[in-house]
Amino acid sequence: MLEDKNPKPVSELSQLGEFGLIKHLTENIVLQNKSSVKGVGDDAAVLHYKNKQTVVTTDLLVEGVHFDLLYTPLKHLGYKAVVVNISDVYAMNAHPKQITVSIAVSNKMSIEGLEDLYEGIALACNIYGVDLVGGDTTSSTSGLIISVTAIGEVEAKDIVYRNEAKEHDLICVSGDLGGAFMGLQLLEREKLVFNETKGIQPDFSGHDYVLERQLKPEPRQDVIQMFEEIGIKPTAMIDVSDGLSSDLLHICHQSEVGCVIYEDKIPIDFTVVSLAQEMNLDPTVCALNGGEDYELLFTIKLEDYEKIKDQKRVTIIGHITADKENYTIVDKNEQVHKLVAQGWNALLNNKNE
Amino acid sequence: MLEDKNPKPVSELSQLGEFGLIKHLTENIVLQNKSSVKGVGDDAAVLHYKNKQTVVTTDLLVEGVHFDLLYTPLKHLGYKAVVVNISDVYAMNAHPKQITVSIAVSNKMSIEGLEDLYEGIALACNIYGVDLVGGDTTSSTSGLIISVTAIGEVEAKDIVYRNEAKEHDLICVSGDLGGAFMGLQLLEREKLVFNETKGIQPDFSGHDYVLERQLKPEPRQDVIQMFEEIGIKPTAMIDVSDGLSSDLLHICHQSEVGCVIYEDKIPIDFTVVSLAQEMNLDPTVCALNGGEDYELLFTIKLEDYEKIKDQKRVTIIGHITADKENYTIVDKNEQVHKLVAQGWNALLNNKNE
Repeated sequence: MLEDKNPKPVSELSQLGEFGLIKHLTENIVLQNKSSVKGVGDDAAVLHYKNKQTVVTTDLLVEGVHFDLLYTPLKHLGYKAVVVNISDVYAMNAHPKQITVSIAVSNKMSIEGLEDLYEGIALACNIYGVDLVGGDTTSSTSGLIISVTAIGEVEAKDIVYRNEAKEHDLICVSGDLGGAFMGLQLLEREKLVFNETKGIQPDFSGHDYVLERQLKPEPRQDVIQMFEEIGIKPTAMIDVSDGLSSDLLHICHQSEVGCVIYEDKIPIDFTVVSLAQEMNLDPTVCALNGGEDYELLFTIKLEDYEKIKDQKRVTIIGHITADKENYTIVDKNEQVHKLVAQGWNALLNNKNE
Repeated sequence: MLEDKNPKPVSELSQLGEFGLIKHLTENIVLQNKSSVKGVGDDAAVLHYKNKQTVVTTDLLVEGVHFDLLYTPLKHLGYKAVVVNISDVYAMNAHPKQITVSIAVSNKMSIEGLEDLYEGIALACNIYGVDLVGGDTTSSTSGLIISVTAIGEVEAKDIVYRNEAKEHDLICVSGDLGGAFMGLQLLEREKLVFNETKGIQPDFSGHDYVLERQLKPEPRQDVIQMFEEIGIKPTAMIDVSDGLSSDLLHICHQSEVGCVIYEDKIPIDFTVVSLAQEMNLDPTVCALNGGEDYELLFTIKLEDYEKIKDQKRVTIIGHITADKENYTIVDKNEQVHKLVAQGWNALLNNKNE
């Protein structure tokens, strides 16, 4: 996963020029969605959503802040850049249909490197049924920058915002948490070893799960489909990008409610627990504050409990309270603590805390 | 225009944090358009275009590549970042309605600096009737990066692509060309003087027009309105961002036609001509290759000549030919030359040629 065993010959970007490069990277695109009227190649893409509403979300990924090319394969990076955006579309209970991708690259980047990046982008597009319809390609004076905008569709009645959680609603989360953060810790640790020992290859055996959570996260399309199948509309929803505590507080603040969650209910994979312990970290803290898990955190009405209780992909971790000053977590010893946002703060730190 | 005579006290970004910063920068936004259902503050913005089609375009501006903060006031930069995107929307004959703005900033940037940037963004939004509905704010390891996505609406029957110019169509351009390029040359010249003389203030007197063309371009909303008023739909259209020759060739290539334009018809402001001569540059070359004028370049059917001939904001500069290998410019001495694309190539150069 972390090394390219068959390095391809390196070609220079200047051979192609900007328009040649865009054409080269996008020539194999076939639009899949009816709402994509016109893709790459004009001043703008043209979409037609008829009577549905559209959702629009955008994310900017900066080398040295959001990713380290030393241990991030470009194909994975392209995939992740798409996925983190369509995760935001799912968090509105909407269906992603188009993306635009803008990149700024230094002249050090090879055409083959960009091809790998776009291979990852195309793979994510295919898997999640999204059309790449436009973008911009320019040069960078420093590292690689990727800006993705995702557009999705949804019936007005189905949209889920963050601000309608009510007292007694159940707080649910999909999958498990903390894995992406532990993957990052592992990669950073092995990077240190690699640098200090001048090139001894890192040993990642047994850590596939956390590495995949960090390098190749999957957005929860299946959870959105589940809502439809079991007939549930969450009252509020957000994707876990900043960390469970930070993202739950977003729901609480915007809904003007409080919350109680239970430490022993927070879903954490056993490989995350064992790696955290090995690294002297508290697994719960990793799950609360790590972020980048791209799971869906949502609230449902109490009366929907029966519908969701047997869904393996979802865990109920607590409930919403009326007291909007009160955000609490009950630990395994039944001690009550204030829940605080200590998630990833992009402006204060260049790495997850 | 080029200096802030009342520097404000400088506050550090880390005082606010990412969410505080977004809130601070966007708290005064009032959505103006019916199609803007929900703006900043959730996982995604929500739009509703009913039965109209939507156009989507995006541009990435990178410090040191697209702008130099030494001579670009942040308010102007914010304004321009919006304008270059809505210019692409007009180039589809569409009406811009929403933008998202993502920025990556280094810790060296002050809150006041970002406030200036967003003041320019808000000004452009107000003037052109656009809602800021979302974005992303993150840190940068190097300079300032701005990614804007603009969304507009248009009736399906009114969309103008680049690929439907036909033989005998008239080639028209709005406004005048070469000014933005000359503004950049002037700024670069004075920057050199400033650096070499250790701080002697540059003298820009008499050059307001070219400086404004470079630092505060205006997209041609009025031309789109004119089409409606006089009942013309262009057969092809593009905005002049890369230079007249490069952008005209885009229309020709995509429409599979040739063209003839006449040097003496190309509209160039007299201040551009005189400054070009002062700097030993050929004004026609500046107009052909300079770019960043954000004028509209379009083709109309010959039978629409009567409708457009008295429109002061438009100049007819040539016509489309059937021979798709033949792109020509006839000079003032009636010599025929091949028209070649030498516009701004973002991947080969960091500055206009």
